Amino acid sequence: MKPIQVGLLGIGTVGSGVFNVLRRNQEEIQRRAGRGIEIGMVADLDTARAQSVVGSGVKVVKDAREVIANPDIDIVVELIGGYGIARELMLAAIAAGKHVVTANKALLAVHGTEIFAAAHQRGVMVAFEAAVAGGIPIIKSLREGLTANRIEWIAGIINGTTNFILSEMRDKGLDFDVVLKEAQRLGYAEADPTFDIEGVDAAHKATIMSAIAFGIPVQFDKAYVEGITKLAAQDIRYAEQLGYRIKLLGITKRATKGIELRVHPSLVPARRLIANVEGAMNAVVVQGDAVGTTLHYGKGAGSEPTASAVIADLVDITRLHTADAAHRVPHLAFQPDQMSSEAVLPMDEVVTSYYLRLRVADEAGVLAKVTGLCADAGVSIDAVLQREAGEGERQTDLIILTHNVREGTMNEVIGRMQALPTVLAPIVRIRKEELA
Amino acid sequence: MKPIQVGLLGIGTVGSGVFNVLRRNQEEIQRRAGRGIEIGMVADLDTARAQSVVGSGVKVVKDAREVIANPDIDIVVELIGGYGIARELMLAAIAAGKHVVTANKALLAVHGTEIFAAAHQRGVMVAFEAAVAGGIPIIKSLREGLTANRIEWIAGIINGTTNFILSEMRDKGLDFDVVLKEAQRLGYAEADPTFDIEGVDAAHKATIMSAIAFGIPVQFDKAYVEGITKLAAQDIRYAEQLGYRIKLLGITKRATKGIELRVHPSLVPARRLIANVEGAMNAVVVQGDAVGTTLHYGKGAGSEPTASAVIADLVDITRLHTADAAHRVPHLAFQPDQMSSEAVLPMDEVVTSYYLRLRVADEAGVLAKVTGLCADAGVSIDAVLQREAGEGERQTDLIILTHNVREGTMNEVIGRMQALPTVLAPIVRIRKEELA
Repeated sequence: MKPIQVGLLGIGTVGSGVFNVLRRNQEEIQRRAGRGIEIGMVADLDTARAQSVVGSGVKVVKDAREVIANPDIDIVVELIGGYGIARELMLAAIAAGKHVVTANKALLAVHGTEIFAAAHQRGVMVAFEAAVAGGIPIIKSLREGLTANRIEWIAGIINGTTNFILSEMRDKGLDFDVVLKEAQRLGYAEADPTFDIEGVDAAHKATIMSAIAFGIPVQFDKAYVEGITKLAAQDIRYAEQLGYRIKLLGITKRATKGIELRVHPSLVPARRLIANVEGAMNAVVVQGDAVGTTLHYGKGAGSEPTASAVIADLVDITRLHTADAAHRVPHLAFQPDQMSSEAVLPMDEVVTSYYLRLRVADEAGVLAKVTGLCADAGVSIDAVLQREAGEGERQTDLIILTHNVREGTMNEVIGRMQALPTVLAPIVRIRKEELA
Repeated sequence: MKPIQVGLLGIGTVGSGVFNVLRRNQEEIQRRAGRGIEIGMVADLDTARAQSVVGSGVKVVKDAREVIANPDIDIVVELIGGYGIARELMLAAIAAGKHVVTANKALLAVHGTEIFAAAHQRGVMVAFEAAVAGGIPIIKSLREGLTANRIEWIAGIINGTTNFILSEMRDKGLDFDVVLKEAQRLGYAEADPTFDIEGVDAAHKATIMSAIAFGIPVQFDKAYVEGITKLAAQDIRYAEQLGYRIKLLGITKRATKGIELRVHPSLVPARRLIANVEGAMNAVVVQGDAVGTTLHYGKGAGSEPTASAVIADLVDITRLHTADAAHRVPHLAFQPDQMSSEAVLPMDEVVTSYYLRLRVADEAGVLAKVTGLCADAGVSIDAVLQREAGEGERQTDLIILTHNVREGTMNEVIGRMQALPTVLAPIVRIRKEELA
């Protein structure tokens, strides 16, 4: 089957990510989607730069309307941003019968009602996973994964710039202005950071989640929006003393009299997972009456994390286009005729790191012998902890953390250690995963 | 449209949850799904108990085959568990053209290839969100939300019983045997806990995630499985000293020579979010090449969390049955003609708690005056932190944490505080969210 054809409107940071990931992972994506997904045409004002990103094989034009008018294009990806021309183009794409994928939270939070109505009427999809919390599939979780629940509230760290600034303020005890300048220097904050630091970006996202959670129209104009510009370092310190962290939260909640929709700095108990989300990361907590608390964590911005969400939407649409209902999502994600025969490795072939505890005689040279066995086999040691023997004790514990090594090799070394006369009990071996 | 008819095979803990949540949230679920979802028939060996759960309106039978043979039943939910009769019934339901929803990880990890092939051929869906990590929509995230990615690895705390035991061992410094007995007493571990504590349950779930992540068949027989029964309290302590926690992880990873699939206790750096997942909670970390790290956290077991996943599958199937492709998932989760007009509350009506910082004169009676104003307005105080004035200082900071109160009321009280002559600077007010 011919690959589904995607037209890209705007190929900046996110657009490049979409192009690169689609190309790099094209084989796996096709095995999942049941059909290839291809960027067929790109519109960007800077055609030279755009052409250099996509190479000579893809047609680049200046006028987005050419992409929309192209009958070969099945899906239009809008990555221009803003409320103005993006709205016109999106409505034009819908009118032309194209499905639309967008990362434009501002547009949907303000003009969503008009756009969704147009799409519904025309029988096309407007998909927007990338509009909220970047690569975290939170829209899918809310719209599909948690449909059993009466949602009680949602609270999220949904702006990476402000979370980075707050993390730095706390870590270094600095005031807002100082850290903002640093964030701008590092590229974590834009030259004009207003939308981020005043909470507007987070409010756009909270508005969208609020609509999905409670079945109300998007109504950004009713959101309460307060940023982090007035936060003082001393309040972060006092909060810490009281067991809290300060985070910019987007909150929407079902209250007795109506729906709460608000963005503002909030003290959060330090022991909550979400209080420990640091730097530019995002996390959304959803409270449902059946499921209880769930938390969804990941990168909320950046080229490829956002592209991950855009492409997930492209796969969704491709699957709907291409398969009948019963075969839309393959049971094991990949199409049944596209399964891999790659082998599951025997445990000896697994490479990981290890914690070893040896009960050893408390005498000179033991450590040297044990670590010598490691060195001989090329097992590199990360850390050693030797417990001091108690008064009158003749034995002690020797703890070793290794770097990565083949399990088969590790087992051989453990066998040799066990044979040492100074090792007095069976060696305890627990694997160690850095998960980084 | 007539509600879609669901037949329940087995109505124990999870089945009761499915029945209760479907009934309690039926209006919202219908607004999302575009059609009602109804339990039409139940099979359970204990018909009397089953009937007492569902009431007299639902037909209860002893023989599951009666449910499968009923032409009015569209979807069969298998909640019997195990590899034996459950497999036969699932294959019979598929052969009868019914969609199947199941929480049976053991069956899918061992016989998944046979079952998925049968379903594919017959054109029905076998949905199993509830089979892995209970209420966390991790199957959906992997199959649909992260399809752009080449998955690098997955590591999860996917067995609540063992995580509870490990949390207790660490908190209380107790050995495995002692904590297991306590967990059994509290109902966190079953009378025969073998499948949990030996890692078998986690390996079933890891096997399923492995297949979905890497497009390989389910192959539980190739999984390496090691439980927590041999863990000693002292290793947990030593790990702690070295900056690690010990968790039972289900891991699957793309290595150079093949796929790793393994369950065993693992040291995890204490600063990772997943190291801080305590008690019976579950969490799955997914590393994708585009999205980076995502973490998915929630309740991995229990009546209603598991029901949440079962019902999400029922909604998915209902939407596919009922809507054309373009209208399958409504843009805002709820059907366009089912939107609510519930109002977004003005900020004055929001109820939350507050952190206040007052710059006050360091003199007797200030605290009494300030807290008096709170008491007069019914604002209840949670904590007070009064900084000691430095040598020669005439001013100090007074920090107040309040309990929940209407924001309008709080603002009035702040206004009165601000008017006190002993309050020397604008009061800082930051909202506080317990998120519990």
